[in-house]
Amino acid sequence: MAGSTFGNLFRITTWGESHGKGIGVVIDGCPANVKLSEDDIQAYLNRRKPGTSQYTTPRKESDSVSILSGVFEGVTTGCPISLVVMNESQRSHDYSEIKTYYRPGHADYTFDEKYGFRDYRGGGRSSGRETIGRVAGGAIAANILKDLGITVTAYTKSIGPVSIDYDHFDINEIHNNAVCMPDAKASQEAEAFLQKQMEDMDSTGGVVECIVHGLPAGIGEPVFDKLDANLAKAMLSIGAVKGFEIGSGFEAASMAGSIQNDAFYSEDQKHVLKKTNYAGGVLGGISDGSDVVFRVAFKPTPSIFKKQETINQNKENIEVQIKGRHDPIVVPRAVVVVETMAAITITDLLFANMTSQMNKIKEFYQK
Amino acid sequence: MAGSTFGNLFRITTWGESHGKGIGVVIDGCPANVKLSEDDIQAYLNRRKPGTSQYTTPRKESDSVSILSGVFEGVTTGCPISLVVMNESQRSHDYSEIKTYYRPGHADYTFDEKYGFRDYRGGGRSSGRETIGRVAGGAIAANILKDLGITVTAYTKSIGPVSIDYDHFDINEIHNNAVCMPDAKASQEAEAFLQKQMEDMDSTGGVVECIVHGLPAGIGEPVFDKLDANLAKAMLSIGAVKGFEIGSGFEAASMAGSIQNDAFYSEDQKHVLKKTNYAGGVLGGISDGSDVVFRVAFKPTPSIFKKQETINQNKENIEVQIKGRHDPIVVPRAVVVVETMAAITITDLLFANMTSQMNKIKEFYQK
Amino acid sequence: MAGSTFGNLFRITTWGESHGKGIGVVIDGCPANVKLSEDDIQAYLNRRKPGTSQYTTPRKESDSVSILSGVFEGVTTGCPISLVVMNESQRSHDYSEIKTYYRPGHADYTFDEKYGFRDYRGGGRSSGRETIGRVAGGAIAANILKDLGITVTAYTKSIGPVSIDYDHFDINEIHNNAVCMPDAKASQEAEAFLQKQMEDMDSTGGVVECIVHGLPAGIGEPVFDKLDANLAKAMLSIGAVKGFEIGSGFEAASMAGSIQNDAFYSEDQKHVLKKTNYAGGVLGGISDGSDVVFRVAFKPTPSIFKKQETINQNKENIEVQIKGRHDPIVVPRAVVVVETMAAITITDLLFANMTSQMNKIKEFYQK
Amino acid sequence: MAGSTFGNLFRITTWGESHGKGIGVVIDGCPANVKLSEDDIQAYLNRRKPGTSQYTTPRKESDSVSILSGVFEGVTTGCPISLVVMNESQRSHDYSEIKTYYRPGHADYTFDEKYGFRDYRGGGRSSGRETIGRVAGGAIAANILKDLGITVTAYTKSIGPVSIDYDHFDINEIHNNAVCMPDAKASQEAEAFLQKQMEDMDSTGGVVECIVHGLPAGIGEPVFDKLDANLAKAMLSIGAVKGFEIGSGFEAASMAGSIQNDAFYSEDQKHVLKKTNYAGGVLGGISDGSDVVFRVAFKPTPSIFKKQETINQNKENIEVQIKGRHDPIVVPRAVVVVETMAAITITDLLFANMTSQMNKIKEFYQK
Repeated sequence: MAGSTFGNLFRITTWGESHGKGIGVVIDGCPANVKLSEDDIQAYLNRRKPGTSQYTTPRKESDSVSILSGVFEGVTTGCPISLVVMNESQRSHDYSEIKTYYRPGHADYTFDEKYGFRDYRGGGRSSGRETIGRVAGGAIAANILKDLGITVTAYTKSIGPVSIDYDHFDINEIHNNAVCMPDAKASQEAEAFLQKQMEDMDSTGGVVECIVHGLPAGIGEPVFDKLDANLAKAMLSIGAVKGFEIGSGFEAASMAGSIQNDAFYSEDQKHVLKKTNYAGGVLGGISDGSDVVFRVAFKPTPSIFKKQETINQNKENIEVQIKGRHDPIVVPRAVVVVETMAAITITDLLFANMTSQMNKIKEFYQK
Repeated sequence: MAGSTFGNLFRITTWGESHGKGIGVVIDGCPANVKLSEDDIQAYLNRRKPGTSQYTTPRKESDSVSILSGVFEGVTTGCPISLVVMNESQRSHDYSEIKTYYRPGHADYTFDEKYGFRDYRGGGRSSGRETIGRVAGGAIAANILKDLGITVTAYTKSIGPVSIDYDHFDINEIHNNAVCMPDAKASQEAEAFLQKQMEDMDSTGGVVECIVHGLPAGIGEPVFDKLDANLAKAMLSIGAVKGFEIGSGFEAASMAGSIQNDAFYSEDQKHVLKKTNYAGGVLGGISDGSDVVFRVAFKPTPSIFKKQETINQNKENIEVQIKGRHDPIVVPRAVVVVETMAAITITDLLFANMTSQMNKIKEFYQK
Repeated sequence: MAGSTFGNLFRITTWGESHGKGIGVVIDGCPANVKLSEDDIQAYLNRRKPGTSQYTTPRKESDSVSILSGVFEGVTTGCPISLVVMNESQRSHDYSEIKTYYRPGHADYTFDEKYGFRDYRGGGRSSGRETIGRVAGGAIAANILKDLGITVTAYTKSIGPVSIDYDHFDINEIHNNAVCMPDAKASQEAEAFLQKQMEDMDSTGGVVECIVHGLPAGIGEPVFDKLDANLAKAMLSIGAVKGFEIGSGFEAASMAGSIQNDAFYSEDQKHVLKKTNYAGGVLGGISDGSDVVFRVAFKPTPSIFKKQETINQNKENIEVQIKGRHDPIVVPRAVVVVETMAAITITDLLFANMTSQMNKIKEFYQK
Repeated sequence: MAGSTFGNLFRITTWGESHGKGIGVVIDGCPANVKLSEDDIQAYLNRRKPGTSQYTTPRKESDSVSILSGVFEGVTTGCPISLVVMNESQRSHDYSEIKTYYRPGHADYTFDEKYGFRDYRGGGRSSGRETIGRVAGGAIAANILKDLGITVTAYTKSIGPVSIDYDHFDINEIHNNAVCMPDAKASQEAEAFLQKQMEDMDSTGGVVECIVHGLPAGIGEPVFDKLDANLAKAMLSIGAVKGFEIGSGFEAASMAGSIQNDAFYSEDQKHVLKKTNYAGGVLGGISDGSDVVFRVAFKPTPSIFKKQETINQNKENIEVQIKGRHDPIVVPRAVVVVETMAAITITDLLFANMTSQMNKIKEFYQK
């Protein structure tokens, strides 16, 4: 359980450090005969690539993915798919200073405590670059889901104090602005807020929302492998995430049952619908056929340029000022991480669900 | 991954339905030589037992636990521990009506979709009684942690609109009131609010907070098996939970990095401390030696006595009114579920951490 | 990985000691809507029950199974199935002597080394009674396989020097003799040999063979979860097993490739057949549609009545003579253990195989 | 459970096909601070490299390994280690013929049945080249074990009818001859036999034996994760393996208990010894401190040059004659695969064993 594997039936194992030779992922459990090209994966990676806006680190990385195995003549073979992105600017930096002290808000201290030392170059394994493996693997899951008519869409819901207005919600707007908001006006306010934070040499957090559409009812396992439980793990496993909520989420805590309980109804005595969706598409850990809707809270980027108090490796109290340039917010680049981790979680549970009824197993094998 | 197993090295597998013969758990991976009696476990089960206050269902269950294996002469043997609680009032009810329709807010519909039918007696496997296995198994984990100087304490932070006041925080108060609040005054307001909800034939939700004290730095695996990721899964796997947050949680999304970043310091050049704990004790998914602090949002009990709209199994729109008597809130009885699930998660990761450094492994085997 | 769970999608977790309160198993991942009664399971348990012939210990145990969960109105619900067999004669014995020394060929010494002490009553968890959980769980797997047209049949191939003669092979004979041989004449010789061993206060070993018929081609995962690899683990996990071979097995080591390679042919251009089956039904770890045929070697019962040299807990050299009465051979009672463990392994891989092709997944979900 | 991951705490995930871009492995769970260089791994890979004798395929592959992650300044970091060997001669061949029919003894047919088609280039994932990932990952495990004073040594015990003579056993001879036999005279006879098989356009099988020395008593988990059960799975997961036995193995089936039971004794009242080792170092699935000794049977190479009967993809009966040149035996190159898979299995169980006693856990955390 050393921690770099996620999923059971559709399973990714990621590897790589910020300033090592590369970053990669092995996907095991991908069925045969899924169409897959490097372009399919690259499209997702480009959404988290640095340098695409003024709010991202200018580190030069093309983040080009190579498929090393598991694909033959344009389709998956059923065997493990190995994807690699080589690091290009891994030697660009002087880390002589950073190695001697613990940056506040980073995992420097905890890695040292756990392992006795750490790869101090750019955060090593705890860097945001680790998510490349997730996004590359999740792109495949997203492809599988699309084939089944299921879409996963994440976007920025808020940045600092600026939230989207659902009256202006426009899904096509998400990729039109630098902050991935489905609301053009809010995106401008968010950008203005980010400018101010950057001037203050500070950073900010935000909330990502994600909607899964087209998921049939019945997905998720009761008790521990609930759909929402596995989504929560997937989301909290993303660095900088501090919270997860589904449906009415924390607001449910102050709601009345008569409101929270979504009324079922049917117009045609065939399709089951709900008048509201406070459940967020999940009842008892199992999808109910409505949209699955959840939110993920990200803390501000810990790398800021203000002076900060901390200790060095000799545990002496010192003041530090981090150099270089860093994203003032992780959220816009994290949107695709949320989306792909959700796709992996859902694919895994869709596969697990195939053995839930004996008659369906019989049908499967008697063809 | 059928879903009834949680944990890797310290692992529980639960079984049982609300109105079946009993409920139980098998704990595998408990080390040998942990002192354990039925009383140790019963003490935890009594905290979730029904009928202890006017806010819990009057269902008569003594919830007495039997140890069937894995304990010899008062200590654990290292072999699996089987714990059973027999159901006493499992035939007390008429379910002829409930089996024909889908209760809003419950898992009736989703179980039918997943399995083709359901055990309709009291919710079957999706009942809150399922948590008996968790609490019984978690009591052992809590015992192990105590032996290592680690305590896990959960309590009610809010019920509906009523929150505790941290200025009046008194940990000894938790078990002195029916709602498990560490604040006597708030508990009275909460009880008044619950009375009102009951009169309205409605229910309410609430928030449970949990503090882990004494956990050494270095616990948790990077990437997917982060301490907070595994806690999030553990919490969302509890029925009725809609959200999880750690440290500053959702507030982090609107905080500045200069605030969220906890400054490290040391007074004696030996112990590492933090001036604040917005991280909630976890950096990069690994414990930092501060208290681990997280919160869990519970939705209102879905069983309410108001009339509700829903559909029956023929997918006809109907109105229903649920009979019997149910808890107007799940939170007070869920406090111990949060506490024990946290204990299991932490024990599991403490064990996993033992192989993180080669020199410690050598020391272990060279004695 | 504490060791008491086997299987991934169809998964059993066993518990219990020889002289504890009982023995049991939790089956997780059984699909809903499998017909199941206590009688279905009891039929398998009766085949390993003690006291059915003069070659088994006369310990009095009815080994009656109770289903505590997961079955509703005669069919499985998809939720975990808990099965329990209470021990009846667990206090019948004086173990004051046995606790002080290490019986040769038993796990007394290794348990003490692992755990620091042991439950010395009748071998505790290392007793053959541990297999009750396997057989009970495996009975369900066998039922599932029957429903899919797959049969698993194990029998005694040899006892000491006495082997069955394939010219006299009669599958109906298996349950007609005390040693479970499909050859009446060989069974008589085997019984005579056993009588001699008993007179000599000694014991003997034997080989169990198992045939899986009706398994479709394509089952088993490439690389580590090969059908034969998982069967090998399943078999070596049975106490007293010292070897496993499939198809031509160890003889393959001295065969020519031109013989070992089974020629494929077809009579109707539809069904694929093989002229021989040296492969034992598995190519590259995946079933080829032929019968799966494997053999398992059992060592002699370690409990013998001859004087033996050993050490006591103070590591002094001593001579011991074990009292009581024990089976002079484990094989006849182990036949059903081999059969049920094979059933579990195959069910698990049949389930895993359902996600191997994208077009089949699409078909599954688009109905 | 798609099958390309082995191990729990020390875990390898392999990927790659015979004629894809490369072959690799991700090792997760390697502790921090293990010295590791590419040379350490290359030394093991060179032992399975093709072209080192006349009995191996002349395919040109340097099999040079690159470490892409998890190692920093010469030691492991505790994070996943990604190892890659690029294929050099992957485009050297014409597979237009082989893709139309099923080679006897190969996995062509079973892959087609499982996945609907196959990567037909050189066997794809079912090729012996897949073992590169195992050997590379296992080299790290072997390094860890050496650090703990544990050695794993495999060698050829027999090739076709030629077996080593234990009276001439010389461990230093293993790497002195082309067939890896610890007996110079037997190796010459084996080579002569191989020459004859090659002239006959045929192939042969053989047996590999493996000895683990220095393993402390207490390793292995009772019930399913027995040391011998996990070794059996590890070995049968190697392509071409048809049997596994430990200690007296299949001979145990015809032995008397009074012989099979190894007598314990002690010369100094401190160290526990056994007069014989028919157990092969394992009692009840747990190591007993003696050498662990097991044997693995390999079938003859299925690629032979004799004419063979088979079917094509239209299921027509045809005759084929395989071209190219192939190893007439897999055993000499498989020796290092057996050795490294054993090293992985044992490392994994050594790590698992660290949580078997509460007092040792307390000691670990109270330093």
